[in-house]
Amino acid sequence: MASESGKLWGGRFVGAVDPIMEKFNSSIAYDRHLWEVDVQGSKAYSRGLEKAGLLTKAEMDQILHGLDKVAEEWAQGTFKLSPNDEDIHTANERRLKELIGETAGKLHTGRSRNDQVVTDLRLWMRQNCSKLSALLWELIRTMVDRAEAERDVLFPGYTHLQRAQPTGWSHWILSHAVALTRDSERLLEVQKRVNVLPLGSGAIAGNPLGVDRELLQAELNFGAITLNSMDATSERDFVAEFLFWASLCMTHLSRMAEDLILYGTKEFGFVQLSDAYSTGSSLMPQKKNPDSLELIRSKAGRVFGRCAGLLMTLKGLPSTYNKDLQEDKEAVFEVSDTMSAVLQVATGVISTLQIHRENMARALSPDMLATDLAYYLVRKGMPFRQAHEASGKAVFMAETKGVALNQLSLKELQTISPLFSGDVSHVWDYGHSVEQYAALGGTARASVDWQIGQVRALLRAQQA
Amino acid sequence: MASESGKLWGGRFVGAVDPIMEKFNSSIAYDRHLWEVDVQGSKAYSRGLEKAGLLTKAEMDQILHGLDKVAEEWAQGTFKLSPNDEDIHTANERRLKELIGETAGKLHTGRSRNDQVVTDLRLWMRQNCSKLSALLWELIRTMVDRAEAERDVLFPGYTHLQRAQPTGWSHWILSHAVALTRDSERLLEVQKRVNVLPLGSGAIAGNPLGVDRELLQAELNFGAITLNSMDATSERDFVAEFLFWASLCMTHLSRMAEDLILYGTKEFGFVQLSDAYSTGSSLMPQKKNPDSLELIRSKAGRVFGRCAGLLMTLKGLPSTYNKDLQEDKEAVFEVSDTMSAVLQVATGVISTLQIHRENMARALSPDMLATDLAYYLVRKGMPFRQAHEASGKAVFMAETKGVALNQLSLKELQTISPLFSGDVSHVWDYGHSVEQYAALGGTARASVDWQIGQVRALLRAQQA
Amino acid sequence: MASESGKLWGGRFVGAVDPIMEKFNSSIAYDRHLWEVDVQGSKAYSRGLEKAGLLTKAEMDQILHGLDKVAEEWAQGTFKLSPNDEDIHTANERRLKELIGETAGKLHTGRSRNDQVVTDLRLWMRQNCSKLSALLWELIRTMVDRAEAERDVLFPGYTHLQRAQPTGWSHWILSHAVALTRDSERLLEVQKRVNVLPLGSGAIAGNPLGVDRELLQAELNFGAITLNSMDATSERDFVAEFLFWASLCMTHLSRMAEDLILYGTKEFGFVQLSDAYSTGSSLMPQKKNPDSLELIRSKAGRVFGRCAGLLMTLKGLPSTYNKDLQEDKEAVFEVSDTMSAVLQVATGVISTLQIHRENMARALSPDMLATDLAYYLVRKGMPFRQAHEASGKAVFMAETKGVALNQLSLKELQTISPLFSGDVSHVWDYGHSVEQYAALGGTARASVDWQIGQVRALLRAQQA
Amino acid sequence: MASESGKLWGGRFVGAVDPIMEKFNSSIAYDRHLWEVDVQGSKAYSRGLEKAGLLTKAEMDQILHGLDKVAEEWAQGTFKLSPNDEDIHTANERRLKELIGETAGKLHTGRSRNDQVVTDLRLWMRQNCSKLSALLWELIRTMVDRAEAERDVLFPGYTHLQRAQPTGWSHWILSHAVALTRDSERLLEVQKRVNVLPLGSGAIAGNPLGVDRELLQAELNFGAITLNSMDATSERDFVAEFLFWASLCMTHLSRMAEDLILYGTKEFGFVQLSDAYSTGSSLMPQKKNPDSLELIRSKAGRVFGRCAGLLMTLKGLPSTYNKDLQEDKEAVFEVSDTMSAVLQVATGVISTLQIHRENMARALSPDMLATDLAYYLVRKGMPFRQAHEASGKAVFMAETKGVALNQLSLKELQTISPLFSGDVSHVWDYGHSVEQYAALGGTARASVDWQIGQVRALLRAQQA
Repeated sequence: MASESGKLWGGRFVGAVDPIMEKFNSSIAYDRHLWEVDVQGSKAYSRGLEKAGLLTKAEMDQILHGLDKVAEEWAQGTFKLSPNDEDIHTANERRLKELIGETAGKLHTGRSRNDQVVTDLRLWMRQNCSKLSALLWELIRTMVDRAEAERDVLFPGYTHLQRAQPTGWSHWILSHAVALTRDSERLLEVQKRVNVLPLGSGAIAGNPLGVDRELLQAELNFGAITLNSMDATSERDFVAEFLFWASLCMTHLSRMAEDLILYGTKEFGFVQLSDAYSTGSSLMPQKKNPDSLELIRSKAGRVFGRCAGLLMTLKGLPSTYNKDLQEDKEAVFEVSDTMSAVLQVATGVISTLQIHRENMARALSPDMLATDLAYYLVRKGMPFRQAHEASGKAVFMAETKGVALNQLSLKELQTISPLFSGDVSHVWDYGHSVEQYAALGGTARASVDWQIGQVRALLRAQQA
Repeated sequence: MASESGKLWGGRFVGAVDPIMEKFNSSIAYDRHLWEVDVQGSKAYSRGLEKAGLLTKAEMDQILHGLDKVAEEWAQGTFKLSPNDEDIHTANERRLKELIGETAGKLHTGRSRNDQVVTDLRLWMRQNCSKLSALLWELIRTMVDRAEAERDVLFPGYTHLQRAQPTGWSHWILSHAVALTRDSERLLEVQKRVNVLPLGSGAIAGNPLGVDRELLQAELNFGAITLNSMDATSERDFVAEFLFWASLCMTHLSRMAEDLILYGTKEFGFVQLSDAYSTGSSLMPQKKNPDSLELIRSKAGRVFGRCAGLLMTLKGLPSTYNKDLQEDKEAVFEVSDTMSAVLQVATGVISTLQIHRENMARALSPDMLATDLAYYLVRKGMPFRQAHEASGKAVFMAETKGVALNQLSLKELQTISPLFSGDVSHVWDYGHSVEQYAALGGTARASVDWQIGQVRALLRAQQA
Repeated sequence: MASESGKLWGGRFVGAVDPIMEKFNSSIAYDRHLWEVDVQGSKAYSRGLEKAGLLTKAEMDQILHGLDKVAEEWAQGTFKLSPNDEDIHTANERRLKELIGETAGKLHTGRSRNDQVVTDLRLWMRQNCSKLSALLWELIRTMVDRAEAERDVLFPGYTHLQRAQPTGWSHWILSHAVALTRDSERLLEVQKRVNVLPLGSGAIAGNPLGVDRELLQAELNFGAITLNSMDATSERDFVAEFLFWASLCMTHLSRMAEDLILYGTKEFGFVQLSDAYSTGSSLMPQKKNPDSLELIRSKAGRVFGRCAGLLMTLKGLPSTYNKDLQEDKEAVFEVSDTMSAVLQVATGVISTLQIHRENMARALSPDMLATDLAYYLVRKGMPFRQAHEASGKAVFMAETKGVALNQLSLKELQTISPLFSGDVSHVWDYGHSVEQYAALGGTARASVDWQIGQVRALLRAQQA
Repeated sequence: MASESGKLWGGRFVGAVDPIMEKFNSSIAYDRHLWEVDVQGSKAYSRGLEKAGLLTKAEMDQILHGLDKVAEEWAQGTFKLSPNDEDIHTANERRLKELIGETAGKLHTGRSRNDQVVTDLRLWMRQNCSKLSALLWELIRTMVDRAEAERDVLFPGYTHLQRAQPTGWSHWILSHAVALTRDSERLLEVQKRVNVLPLGSGAIAGNPLGVDRELLQAELNFGAITLNSMDATSERDFVAEFLFWASLCMTHLSRMAEDLILYGTKEFGFVQLSDAYSTGSSLMPQKKNPDSLELIRSKAGRVFGRCAGLLMTLKGLPSTYNKDLQEDKEAVFEVSDTMSAVLQVATGVISTLQIHRENMARALSPDMLATDLAYYLVRKGMPFRQAHEASGKAVFMAETKGVALNQLSLKELQTISPLFSGDVSHVWDYGHSVEQYAALGGTARASVDWQIGQVRALLRAQQA
């Protein structure tokens, strides 16, 4: 094919190498995190090559031994990168060759960086998902322990941030713990799809040398093998799923943080963060700010941004491997680190949080029992819609008279409905109100106990 | 509480009602889609009330009968909305009252729109997920059928959009089908979490009237019940998950569409869209444009936008119900409609696509066998790294001489390595090349057959 | 080119037309909004054709007259769509032909739907940006009026949602008004880039018939003409910019809504929404919920979702027109409608909001003056860092003693620093505290007046 | 306020400090990039303090001198961070105190980290925007130079990736250059809003010590001062705008990269990347992959992700400073670095790209002149709609006969329309076709020259 000479059109680059391009292209700055799984994958692959007759037993042993040495250098911090090590795969193979000589050149037989890198990433993520699972369980357990210990504390339940109905503080804790159990369930599902072996897919067409992929699967302890080599080397569903998993989990933690920031204001005054999770002001001496919670809240945005970014990149691609996919790793590493920190900080916040029971109790007000007043009438036989209206009239009457709802006299109430009688006084008891909500999932103590049991059972099941 | 009189500060609104606010607040324009499930939920709830002793059998029957009438009116298109019907729940209850009188006012006892709307939405989505599953399966089945029928067709496999290695056309089809099986698997998981009953959670605190939620579950055929009433009424994980499911599935379809758009260019010339899925130009008489594929590609952006939008909305909320959650429904309806259309159009495109076998064959070129040339040397005992380099030298030699790689003489090859001998001629056969990739997941015919079997088995398992 | 017969592979579609594809492809359901600008653009183009000699004066007059009739039918609601009207351009030209006969066929000479649709969209958006500008100004003006009228009201300024320093209520209002002035400025910039004429770019290559684009520009009153026909027909920067403009503006309104929701809680008790912008609960009779503000908050997510969706679609495209771009219009229409409603509702909320001055005053507490106590020492010569520490000690001493900061005796203060003397009592005056912040941009009354003047001047300048 | 003792609920943290929280909270790892602007801001602020009488001339000089020393240490790499340096502001002030003693404690008088950090960030971004502007201009200039030099090269213009009309290669280059001029214009607007001074806003309420903010503005060379202290310390519009600017600019570069990747395939064969911007395959010896372009394409996703993430974070906040805002800096730094690399790599790619003129010429085919054939008839008086149809018939006739469009005989053409005569042969000249598009913005040589002039003028104007 005819092509013209490489004239330059005013650009600043001359010659064969643009250093900015080199840096742009290189991934070693971050994919070095994969050193251990890269060695692990290569060891398994060399066993595969031996079984396929492409390595002698002696060659395999030499490679395995050399790879162990490489790993040792990384572990001890003595591995030295060379300027041409553009990625971890190149670095490890280069070093292996220095250590064992030409035999190293047999390791990559039938393998491509395309299947190698995605195998490494899956190995790394599998391990990381387990770590995050454990941290998530630790947080949930902390929450459930706390919920169990503080079952007697009541405070206002809000909807639309307006006081709605008296509820148990434990019910609030559990509302967030229950959300996190869904994250835990989803993480297991993500992990299942992470745990699929792509090695043996080559660059695109598969492995032509009879490498036994089921052997590789067994060596690396994967749950399944990928079905199609084109797909295996270029799909990043498991990365996108992980990033979305993290985004949704962070949404839950952000909502919990938002609640706690509100409950920790002077105005609400329900909780107080431990000093360990607060900071002061460089200007205002009296300030104690809930920085830990605000950072949790902000990380939700950051994590979602990574998810959105990766999805946009994936969406624009044709099939099979394109270099664009190199973006996957930084997203995974950053989000994993963030999740690890956030889960631990959240656990610390919850376990050291002080609650102000008196303020919680003081915030309960009789108007929050207006629904119960309606139920009172319902129990006397009035259709709910009418009872709702009657109770609304009582609220309005109390507001007009400038008294609390429970200070309306029986007589006054009876002007609204003749169904009111002396036993209406039982309505004005917050504890009694809460205990009504005994249907499964409600805020009554028995239901809270049931919830605790359910969450504990879930944790046990997922850990099994 | 003291409050000041409502002075106006230059705004344009006076009086009790701002019509723009009314329209802003109203959801009937879209939540009317829920009419059927709203009736379904109310029927179950009235049974729950009867069991709890809050309705007599006669009252329940009256309500059930009335609700059937309401449903009938919707089904026949005779239901008349009144101006005050701000949402479907209000509309149905208003109509019920017109039909059966005051007893209708008992239906909402202990229920809130908070648990009602999310029950409706889950019912609707459960049904819709089944529909989408079926459409997805239909698409996958069409692809697998086609893959099976065209197993003998070879064409270039690309990485980085550069010709890489000869592969089977069926292998390409299956690479996309396999991606879609993951979507199918994920959709089942989403559906499992959709299929959880929130009814009986009230506004926030639960149900105070002893309604048996397990009865409701059985009536409505849910797989589980929600654990915590605060969470149940305000979590929209199942919506976010569904939207993300759709986003990832659309990413797959967009990548497939991108491939087909490329393969359908004059330059590639591998495929031709049926007229049914193409359109012409208002200006250029010769044009036939792949509009169907471009629209599929664009919908991926739209669907992701809905996912991003909902997540941003959720992320900014404190816990429990806030009106912000009203945004969930339009997202679900729009994305469901889009997915339904896209899956059907994609099925139509695949089933009517023509392929140009000759162009596919013509596009295979000897340089795509350079990897095989290296493997030839590997099989003769040369370490892969050296073989890769030797093959690279052959490629360069051919380019320099201006001939195809397979036109280098044996003598010329032997200047690169003495391992080359007469049997190197076997390398230059594309069919032979493809058949090497017989490891599981590869492009060899046997492996393609295995893939077809695997995908068929998956479909059977998921449909079961 | 050889091609194979169109076998079907298990799909459900047979024959030339897939009705789902037709609906999928059609845009008339939403692009009919463009009827007026489409006629406007066609009228200008027919003048261009006449000047270029491609229409006689009589033909032009016939077309102009016919187009006026088409417009009249739309305006009167009598325009009848035919089943083949896939978009507004087709519909209008079809109708024109029915009205005036074959001459209608000359209108599209040298024009493509590619340049036509983007001209229409720009015309529509130009007009719409002006409407939104006016609504935005109305909101800002309302806020400034209110800020001016309530300059004497003090309340706590918060950072991290913790009480920080006493500030003017007007200062808070202006903090949001000032943010909106940036939106107003940005909208003008967007509008400038919307207001560029693409007509005369054809499908891709430009106009080959000598149509005078500067004439078209003058006819349609555009500020400039596009420079390159390939770019002109396929760039949607102005759409992306508009959607991002809306997203950022909504972020401001969402933050303001969030403040007001908090200030409207029982716990803060600073403001009360007008009934016109609140709604009740179907379950809890006492509830009054800030639905208007919550909806504003949620729309921020939705609008951003549209921005994200369009950007993802654009990002994945090669250059020039692709059908994917059809997604632009629904995003623009939906976001425009949303912005219009949100701006009007926000204006209504602000103009009818009641404030509770007593609660605001009551929420000011002496610890909020700790910074002022430090400044007191600074004014006596102590370096700020030491003064900050000394004030911190006083805060701690007061907390320990269980008294308010201003109830520490002079003697007690002097144990912290000998610089304290009798005039420290002046510190404990909230009004005095606020008046210190007289530097430009601060909360002192003079600075608030300055801000009001600045914002008013900006509005005048932008409206000019 | 009563509060309970800090019991632990199963969490792992005991004692005052959680090291994970410390790391979570610390920003020094990345905000150290601000060292220079932090010193710059502090120097200006100390001048402000001196003018306000809060520092003597001697104290100011001492501080200025000390700050210069701090800067020198950073510049020489000798600045030593201490473990308590949680951010750059703390580090610099701590070091200043070590260098000059207690006077250092006066520097922060009336200042808060809230106004300090945002001043620093604006200073840094102002400088960075200038750098990015210069890089962007360099890229545009390179493109325009190339467009000018290769004005004689023709190739197919595509719409929907289908061959549409012959166009100039320079016209294609300019279509992307013109898009980038909009980015350049927008960057100036962003920079204008970056260039506004927040210093003197304190934490929230303003500056209480009479610091002259106009002096600070002059010292730091800002274009304006912020209007409201609450807004000034917490708005991050300029960050969001910058991130969106980058997202849109990346969208343009991604679309250009997509074009070049396609044009660089074997199938299109129009361009060839310089080796400096390509890489090979670890498996396939013949491969040369356009990694530079793929990375550009992928970075568009990453950059947008940062924009989306920040916007989500901002959206969820109440007004004034919240710690969530700390997320702004990493986004800015990462995106700035990415943009810098991408712009330079793109310049390198364009300036070293080879084009294959023969392939370009060969890809022009007679059917691309079908529109011109219609125009031929239009010029003979036929209405365009009929001419379009007649040309379509000719295309069909040629396809049916299996000949190229220009090989239909005059007789054959005349069966379609009697208007065809001998001069139709002029239609079949690609150069002639292109020259028709002489209206402003078209692909004719004169119009390309005009475009080059327009873009050059824009660059000159923006650089002025």
